[in-house]
Amino acid sequence: MSDSTLRRPDGRLAGELRPISFVKNIAPYALGSVLIRWGNTQVICAVSCEESVPRWMKEQGVQGGWATAEYSMLPYSTLGRKPRDITRGRLDGRSQEIQRLIGRSIRSVLNREALGARTLYVDCDVVQADGGTRAASITGAFVALKMAVRKLLDEERIWEDPIQKSVAAVSVGILKGRALLDLDYQEDSAAEVDMNIVMTSSGEFCELQGTGEQVTFSEKELQEMLELGRRGIYRLNELQEVAFLEGEKGD
Amino acid sequence: MSDSTLRRPDGRLAGELRPISFVKNIAPYALGSVLIRWGNTQVICAVSCEESVPRWMKEQGVQGGWATAEYSMLPYSTLGRKPRDITRGRLDGRSQEIQRLIGRSIRSVLNREALGARTLYVDCDVVQADGGTRAASITGAFVALKMAVRKLLDEERIWEDPIQKSVAAVSVGILKGRALLDLDYQEDSAAEVDMNIVMTSSGEFCELQGTGEQVTFSEKELQEMLELGRRGIYRLNELQEVAFLEGEKGD
Amino acid sequence: MSDSTLRRPDGRLAGELRPISFVKNIAPYALGSVLIRWGNTQVICAVSCEESVPRWMKEQGVQGGWATAEYSMLPYSTLGRKPRDITRGRLDGRSQEIQRLIGRSIRSVLNREALGARTLYVDCDVVQADGGTRAASITGAFVALKMAVRKLLDEERIWEDPIQKSVAAVSVGILKGRALLDLDYQEDSAAEVDMNIVMTSSGEFCELQGTGEQVTFSEKELQEMLELGRRGIYRLNELQEVAFLEGEKGD
Amino acid sequence: MSDSTLRRPDGRLAGELRPISFVKNIAPYALGSVLIRWGNTQVICAVSCEESVPRWMKEQGVQGGWATAEYSMLPYSTLGRKPRDITRGRLDGRSQEIQRLIGRSIRSVLNREALGARTLYVDCDVVQADGGTRAASITGAFVALKMAVRKLLDEERIWEDPIQKSVAAVSVGILKGRALLDLDYQEDSAAEVDMNIVMTSSGEFCELQGTGEQVTFSEKELQEMLELGRRGIYRLNELQEVAFLEGEKGD
Amino acid sequence: MSDSTLRRPDGRLAGELRPISFVKNIAPYALGSVLIRWGNTQVICAVSCEESVPRWMKEQGVQGGWATAEYSMLPYSTLGRKPRDITRGRLDGRSQEIQRLIGRSIRSVLNREALGARTLYVDCDVVQADGGTRAASITGAFVALKMAVRKLLDEERIWEDPIQKSVAAVSVGILKGRALLDLDYQEDSAAEVDMNIVMTSSGEFCELQGTGEQVTFSEKELQEMLELGRRGIYRLNELQEVAFLEGEKGD
Amino acid sequence: MSDSTLRRPDGRLAGELRPISFVKNIAPYALGSVLIRWGNTQVICAVSCEESVPRWMKEQGVQGGWATAEYSMLPYSTLGRKPRDITRGRLDGRSQEIQRLIGRSIRSVLNREALGARTLYVDCDVVQADGGTRAASITGAFVALKMAVRKLLDEERIWEDPIQKSVAAVSVGILKGRALLDLDYQEDSAAEVDMNIVMTSSGEFCELQGTGEQVTFSEKELQEMLELGRRGIYRLNELQEVAFLEGEKGD
Repeated sequence: MSDSTLRRPDGRLAGELRPISFVKNIAPYALGSVLIRWGNTQVICAVSCEESVPRWMKEQGVQGGWATAEYSMLPYSTLGRKPRDITRGRLDGRSQEIQRLIGRSIRSVLNREALGARTLYVDCDVVQADGGTRAASITGAFVALKMAVRKLLDEERIWEDPIQKSVAAVSVGILKGRALLDLDYQEDSAAEVDMNIVMTSSGEFCELQGTGEQVTFSEKELQEMLELGRRGIYRLNELQEVAFLEGEKGD
Repeated sequence: MSDSTLRRPDGRLAGELRPISFVKNIAPYALGSVLIRWGNTQVICAVSCEESVPRWMKEQGVQGGWATAEYSMLPYSTLGRKPRDITRGRLDGRSQEIQRLIGRSIRSVLNREALGARTLYVDCDVVQADGGTRAASITGAFVALKMAVRKLLDEERIWEDPIQKSVAAVSVGILKGRALLDLDYQEDSAAEVDMNIVMTSSGEFCELQGTGEQVTFSEKELQEMLELGRRGIYRLNELQEVAFLEGEKGD
Repeated sequence: MSDSTLRRPDGRLAGELRPISFVKNIAPYALGSVLIRWGNTQVICAVSCEESVPRWMKEQGVQGGWATAEYSMLPYSTLGRKPRDITRGRLDGRSQEIQRLIGRSIRSVLNREALGARTLYVDCDVVQADGGTRAASITGAFVALKMAVRKLLDEERIWEDPIQKSVAAVSVGILKGRALLDLDYQEDSAAEVDMNIVMTSSGEFCELQGTGEQVTFSEKELQEMLELGRRGIYRLNELQEVAFLEGEKGD
Repeated sequence: MSDSTLRRPDGRLAGELRPISFVKNIAPYALGSVLIRWGNTQVICAVSCEESVPRWMKEQGVQGGWATAEYSMLPYSTLGRKPRDITRGRLDGRSQEIQRLIGRSIRSVLNREALGARTLYVDCDVVQADGGTRAASITGAFVALKMAVRKLLDEERIWEDPIQKSVAAVSVGILKGRALLDLDYQEDSAAEVDMNIVMTSSGEFCELQGTGEQVTFSEKELQEMLELGRRGIYRLNELQEVAFLEGEKGD
Repeated sequence: MSDSTLRRPDGRLAGELRPISFVKNIAPYALGSVLIRWGNTQVICAVSCEESVPRWMKEQGVQGGWATAEYSMLPYSTLGRKPRDITRGRLDGRSQEIQRLIGRSIRSVLNREALGARTLYVDCDVVQADGGTRAASITGAFVALKMAVRKLLDEERIWEDPIQKSVAAVSVGILKGRALLDLDYQEDSAAEVDMNIVMTSSGEFCELQGTGEQVTFSEKELQEMLELGRRGIYRLNELQEVAFLEGEKGD
Repeated sequence: MSDSTLRRPDGRLAGELRPISFVKNIAPYALGSVLIRWGNTQVICAVSCEESVPRWMKEQGVQGGWATAEYSMLPYSTLGRKPRDITRGRLDGRSQEIQRLIGRSIRSVLNREALGARTLYVDCDVVQADGGTRAASITGAFVALKMAVRKLLDEERIWEDPIQKSVAAVSVGILKGRALLDLDYQEDSAAEVDMNIVMTSSGEFCELQGTGEQVTFSEKELQEMLELGRRGIYRLNELQEVAFLEGEKGD
């Protein structure tokens, strides 16, 4: 059994998050925006709003609003420059997968009827990538979403808060047989199993994605990772709440 | 608590798979191929082989072989014709996500060193889509993979079997609060939660993807779905084995 | 003069077709579908229907319906895997040329007014390619078209049969100076001249495409090829009729 | 039977070509170039040369040279501006089909071994389109080819003339039941049958493409069209020869 | 100080233009067209007209008409064949920059209200490129524009001449420290500074683009270049006027 | 004549810059990076380095290194979300023009031989766009370049400083007949003339781009704009120097 007091390379315990902070209003022309700093990972999360819904909703007569996400890694976000998507002419599979995940996560806590016939765009642009960019994107996007919704309410474009609960995400994994919370890039590269957990403030799952490449994982390992993840999510909910409230009154 | 004897629209019990069968050698120019019929879902799974590895493996000096997958829905696979990917000029996000999942699943049971410096291409083309196409693709692809590897061994292109265990996939979900195995298209559209389980014959997970759109799911529901999935996978392993052995001797 | 009793590598005489059979309803969600097996060539032909016409017809005020075709070679249809069109980002010239030919051939036997303001999509996907894929596509597509039209009549979406006569296609060629019917891949690669004939059941041409690469062909050779082609088409018309009628009553 | 003395709208007899002329060296940086004027149709045909062969030739070890063609309609070539290919992002099917035809026609009269390991690019850009642009392209391209080959010989880059015979092309068709040579745009739009004939100076076919949309054509009509075409080709061969020789000595 | 009597490689003085001529109606289906020959540079300039305006004008409620330009180098316009834009799938940056410049230049002399709700397309296709293709394009396009507008007036599609003044363009540069007018390709490649001047007949600037790659340029050099450019533009205005009037009466 | 004491909407005088500041190391994985804040315009400028040169340099045997730039507006940088380039599949013309300008500006102050056989990538991503994004990109990019070069020197990858002088850029324009320095978005939209000046610390021009849409500009107005621009550039040089030195010693 793994020793819970064993320190990781950066000094963290198995169940410890990296330091996390938020810079609000990084992109003032968006409805809501934050720069989330999560260890060495940094992501700009911005929420914009358009007064229309996707064509398929109109065609199928679906009521209410929509939320969609786009995710991109800026070329200087990695050690060794990453060519832009536009250079290759198309979005790579990983980015598409992540932006679909962000979109689903955000929609899972939204009352789309209360949003009215409008679309929220959640843009996540990675400024620095040191592991956990999808978790940082979802966690930061929720704070930007709260800011955007507050503005819609203040401007009386909506009258009911469409946000039903909060949502955050974190990665867990198995590294050398040991379950760890919040893997950085080095740990993630070496991990046998990588799992992303998206969870609400009420302790329910929005999404669970566990992947073993080469090495598979057992029922017991799954349960250990779920336990670590659950505790990480609670801590993230607190940090999101503090960030959102900060400066709200005097702003 | 849900009544385990309650029948589903097509007469199945909560933990029952749809009828599954395999037509082998549907594409004789591939190294291995099957048409998997899973209820009304039909997928051509074919494995081809090229005597080279991707450029990134050469550049990074990674030894052994590789396996990659491509997934596509043929335009007549849906009620209401689905335009081809090439018409839109790019692969949609869902297809990219699925083909990455198929690729990881196949690689998770392959000893890539024993494969040598070659690439296996797993092509999955959906002829009829009635839910569970990704589960059918992975389950069928493994049978095609076994056939392909058998041929490589017979032709003495490899000397050691690179397949370490078998792999299969199945969907589970929560519909009206009840956990169900193997959702068809109607059930999948109405389900609150949708989960895909990719598992080996030794009962370990390769992949676990659970998604709740709008409705989230609890720890208890997760455990119920995992239990149904585990039993479904065991049954699929048996069907794969029978399909592979069929006609092998007299062929 | 060439000896008419001389056997070809697979035992056929100069004017003999390869064995041909049809599997109906291969894609049950299409309006009509067959898998045509023509020697080692196999093509899925499926006809779908949309209740609208192309924009140019509306803009130009053209009455009646339309039929269009798409042709694709599945990656495992060739010895040596063929990359998908989507990988290159665009359809190659040969595929475009073939799908335009299939479209023209189908339209040449359709009374577009009787079809009403709808579009028929003819999809031809090659599962195995051993020469003559365009002939197999047209010949199979006509059977799928008959099935689709029968269903439209049965469902009372149309009241008059828009099919005016039957259409089939076959290749002929000159190989080592000898005119041959229905070339397989080996023969086609070595042939001096390659000609495709698309003809109706009334013995009239829809399309005639004869090509000599490097070697040109004389008036006399043209006439020999036309004679072989005509006889092949008559035989194909019979096979199409039998396939269409099969199981019709008791279905 | 049709009256052979009946005049067409522009005063021509059934078997008469439109006026044809050539402006040589329209694009002086090409190895050979002409502007062919064929009635109101005008095409720039230019031949360039690169000292390498396509990759597939190297990979397959094919000896000798290659010739390939590109065809494009300039946006001001039609009544009503035609958007450029680049605006749509890809070449339309018709243009691809035509450039493949031009390429095959040119290769059919070339001794590729005598050309050596180089590639000839035949570019055909339509300045004005009034029907018969593919015939004009092939007929003009051959004159540009002769000029280019003469320059290669003069510069002692090759020592043997790779041109084995001349090639030209013309359209024929059936309009109101009457076979006509060289259809202009108006006639072509109204014609029941449209046939392109590419033929060498020795009276052999390179290519024969006959198409009936809606209306099919009989054996007898085919023979009438072939006879008209043959006579048109002989006249074109003379015009090409005169154009090539013009100014050659004193240039 | 530079010797103003020093001859350039082709015999020109520092402030002398290359020989310039115009062939009118090169593309008779356009509303107006010229082939401008400017030394060894040749460009087809054609103006077409569509009876609609861009979508953004409708959406923003902008009144009047629009003019837009497209620029392309034909593959045989350079020594060493230049691949077509369509081969690369997109327009290169240089071409986009030039066509935006042509569009702005043409619009700067147009009264868009007098044009009415229509769009003029200015197409510039380079047949031979020996430096100064953007200057030749703008200078030639203006003549084509005058021809097109004359036709619109004659056809009573517009009643007021929307052309307010004439516009022309020329390049100037610094080569070995000496200011030169109208650089050919050889001079342009060697020049330290390259400047394009677009100017009206009233001596005002539409556009000024001066670029120093590696070597920068001083205030004094700027003034010398401006002086040479101004004189070149006056001469071009005269040549445009003569070309436009030529044959106007008897045509 | 215009009154030099007249205040602009934001209180600035005609020749006054907006407030400008720099946040260094915004993207720590780049070699050098700043966030430049210029009024309400914000741009991330980052410089990365690859140990190779473009293919054309190798092919043409050009010695030394290269610098290239990419420019993009993040979707939340504008009031009203701007769709990403990748959504449209290609870079728009304006962005291409700007990134070519940034590249030329940076190269104009680099000694490419001293750089050695490596490529510097200058990435400019606009976080907030309120006019002058190209000026901010060039001005910020130079500071990031200095930081990157300092690191290359410190790491002894180069031994000689390849930066020969500093470079900055600013916009000037004519608004209601009055010459103004540094236009914000509102002023830029209403301006009759827009000019960008890129200039070195030695007072020489790298680039001069003046554009009048609809309204042209006179020689006198040109001289007024040049004078304003020159003074703005001197002030920018000072700000760049301060920003670069800040924290350098204690870092």
